[in-house]
Amino acid sequence: MLILGLDPSLSCTGWGLVRSEGARLSHIANGQVKTNAKAPLAERLLHLHDAIFAVIGQYAPDRAAVEEVFVNKNAQSTLKLAQARGAILAACARGGLSVNEHAARLVKKAVVGTGAAEKQQVQAMLKVLLPSAQVAGADAADALAVAIADAHLVR
Amino acid sequence: MLILGLDPSLSCTGWGLVRSEGARLSHIANGQVKTNAKAPLAERLLHLHDAIFAVIGQYAPDRAAVEEVFVNKNAQSTLKLAQARGAILAACARGGLSVNEHAARLVKKAVVGTGAAEKQQVQAMLKVLLPSAQVAGADAADALAVAIADAHLVR
Repeated sequence: MLILGLDPSLSCTGWGLVRSEGARLSHIANGQVKTNAKAPLAERLLHLHDAIFAVIGQYAPDRAAVEEVFVNKNAQSTLKLAQARGAILAACARGGLSVNEHAARLVKKAVVGTGAAEKQQVQAMLKVLLPSAQVAGADAADALAVAIADAHLVR
Repeated sequence: MLILGLDPSLSCTGWGLVRSEGARLSHIANGQVKTNAKAPLAERLLHLHDAIFAVIGQYAPDRAAVEEVFVNKNAQSTLKLAQARGAILAACARGGLSVNEHAARLVKKAVVGTGAAEKQQVQAMLKVLLPSAQVAGADAADALAVAIADAHLVR
């Protein structure tokens, strides 16, 4: 089962592909899609949509996974994130993928063993779980974590 | 100038096309795109994206306009709306349209003359400003209002 984890964000969306065979996980690829902060919002959203659709076309994952979204203290950040997420989920559907949503706490628990883990702990566990991965950045790391959690949580 | 007004919503997105020639406005078309509440989120978002892209392909508007989005009391509603908006704005960019954003207050002011107008007043003014329009529903009416406001606000 090839799982595409996604960490949507308007400025930089992370993606990570993990193969799950029984209890065995292996890293396939990961990356980040950045958008030009000076470009109009609609163009940035289309760029995210097209880039994730291209990843799906290249690797043909079986399903996708994202963290659940919630409204945080910064309302404007939440709105940007949710719009990016909308454009990206539409790309998953265009690629024929179902998308599982997991609470951030469950993702951390699946990767580190505790829902209260810090970002650094998640990244350290990634090195253990996917030793061959050259991780493109923090957003790609989060995307790989979601893919690993999906492999654990959805059997 | 042919303006596509949009009123994004996950369950039912309104659209309305208004031609603006000098001070003269005329109604071209309007409609609503409904999504199946039982379908997965990603599929609903793709349906909105594709349906609005099809409207752009059919009518070839010069630009698009939407109301600014804000976080309201119901956080879950805001997140659904923002994701729908993201999928729809990406469709505008795919169609080569720039998208103007207008504050809800300015849209009401442009259509009714006061930023504190009720929905019913906006709909009544639409009948005056676009007498030939058969409006598909409340969401299409809101979309036509945004298009009219855009014609007034962006010269």
